[in-house]
Amino acid sequence: MLEKIIKMTRSEQQGAPRPVMLAIAGDSASGKTTLTKGLVEAVGPERCLSICVDDYHRYDREERRALPFTPLHPDCNYIDIMEQHLQLLALGRPILKPVYDHATGRFTRPQYVEPKEFVIIEGLHPLSTKLTRACFDVTVYLDPPEPIRRGWKVDRDCRKRGYTEAQVLAELERREPESQKFIRPQRRFADIVVRFAPIAGRDEPPGTPLSAELLLRPTIKHPALSSVLTDDHRDAIHLKIMRDQDGTPTDCLHVHGPASQEEARHVEKAIWEELEATHGLPERIGEINPGDRSEPLAITQLILLYHLLQTKTGA
Amino acid sequence: MLEKIIKMTRSEQQGAPRPVMLAIAGDSASGKTTLTKGLVEAVGPERCLSICVDDYHRYDREERRALPFTPLHPDCNYIDIMEQHLQLLALGRPILKPVYDHATGRFTRPQYVEPKEFVIIEGLHPLSTKLTRACFDVTVYLDPPEPIRRGWKVDRDCRKRGYTEAQVLAELERREPESQKFIRPQRRFADIVVRFAPIAGRDEPPGTPLSAELLLRPTIKHPALSSVLTDDHRDAIHLKIMRDQDGTPTDCLHVHGPASQEEARHVEKAIWEELEATHGLPERIGEINPGDRSEPLAITQLILLYHLLQTKTGA
Repeated sequence: MLEKIIKMTRSEQQGAPRPVMLAIAGDSASGKTTLTKGLVEAVGPERCLSICVDDYHRYDREERRALPFTPLHPDCNYIDIMEQHLQLLALGRPILKPVYDHATGRFTRPQYVEPKEFVIIEGLHPLSTKLTRACFDVTVYLDPPEPIRRGWKVDRDCRKRGYTEAQVLAELERREPESQKFIRPQRRFADIVVRFAPIAGRDEPPGTPLSAELLLRPTIKHPALSSVLTDDHRDAIHLKIMRDQDGTPTDCLHVHGPASQEEARHVEKAIWEELEATHGLPERIGEINPGDRSEPLAITQLILLYHLLQTKTGA
Repeated sequence: MLEKIIKMTRSEQQGAPRPVMLAIAGDSASGKTTLTKGLVEAVGPERCLSICVDDYHRYDREERRALPFTPLHPDCNYIDIMEQHLQLLALGRPILKPVYDHATGRFTRPQYVEPKEFVIIEGLHPLSTKLTRACFDVTVYLDPPEPIRRGWKVDRDCRKRGYTEAQVLAELERREPESQKFIRPQRRFADIVVRFAPIAGRDEPPGTPLSAELLLRPTIKHPALSSVLTDDHRDAIHLKIMRDQDGTPTDCLHVHGPASQEEARHVEKAIWEELEATHGLPERIGEINPGDRSEPLAITQLILLYHLLQTKTGA
């Protein structure tokens, strides 16, 4: 009987086209949704599905009160079901995704989700197991310095989720041991580690736009970017070699936040043209909030777009 | 990447023991839950999972009001997700099953379900597609005469679900075209068709226990029952050949409702012993409600137990 199932599953797989799968992992408020939003808009929502896989909780908020761990702990989540659903999506098949309502802390009606040409999976745990990692073509880990992430989390949770600053800071404290144990170790499994941060060692005045550092690991083939990595654009973008946390020499693309918008736009257009894009640069790429742009974010998104489109064409 | 997933899935499959899968299909109120209950009790709930797969609705009750079909229509259900979940269970893997609350007509928190040694799947559609059928070792279709089923449905829906008799009859009427089109065709895919009914052509006084007719199709190997299919027990049980609805000659086991309980019990013990059971006959086998027993139901359950245990040992 197993044979029958495998046979049928195989023939199904031949039918369903496989999507390009991109993981965007990172701790709470590390910028996953902002990064994803621009990518979906650039590819087109009709061709790109994005889902957040933080809804695979084993317990609702009420039940968690009696338990010693935070939602960051794998035992607090149905990691096996998340693995299963990622595999299904990677094979081009639909899932019935659990839905956790962050407003009430309870589970609601599950959602039928079908993969599209591109699937972006963002969340706390998408790179946490061997099996989940096997589902992705490209993997990203968002790694802002902790003080920056804390600021982002306080800002968002107070503005959008109705918490007080003291509550958010207490929650960050409570989660810290599990962040360290279960979230940050995923950094080592990403093809690209993205760090939005002030330039190290420089005393930038308040309000200076953050720069981006992209560790480009050799686990996938990165764009040559030959038209932008020239001396002309050195103030906006340059590639250097650095040592990764574990000492491995790694390519690091530095995108300079304080560069002029004109210069940044020039770089963006050049990358976009390398993608052999048939239409103009996507308008809302680099957008943090309506009216609030980051050129380093735009350039990061363009590099990820490169990977999505290159994987699609099999180049 | 597909290769990586298949490789990992295979090694997972080697790890998880595969359960024996039994389908019990049939229309609403055809006796699926009653039949299942005795099987679970006989095998032991710690070794046997039973689930009803009627929760894969695409719409809740409110949404269905605006739609032209009943829950019997495949388009009203996520048949693809049901297929997927049956495959996963058949491979020994857990699922996150949707849960539809029949009291409110809405979806609630999904349920994490892990297969056990034996998995019994009951519902309206478990034999409706090639892929679902491929998931089962043994398949049963419950086929009571329509007047009997209607009586059961009126009785149950009025007593347990708070409907009036007129409401239930109207609903039966409304569902009839879809019953005919989508439920009854599953009869042809069952290894065993079970029909609880009065003896045909005989004018039995009211209150006479129903008999059972079991079509035993050659798609699986049936028990020889050599110790019970003798002239001694002919009043309680006998095997005959008949033509199936499509004319195919088929074995039909007739279990006589009006036989004495003593005789029926003797037959039950003999079948139970053929199973090489190490403990006594399960007490609640044949139970319809507490205090209300049917010997033909008990004998039907024993034959299904035979199949469960034989498949398990690979005999």
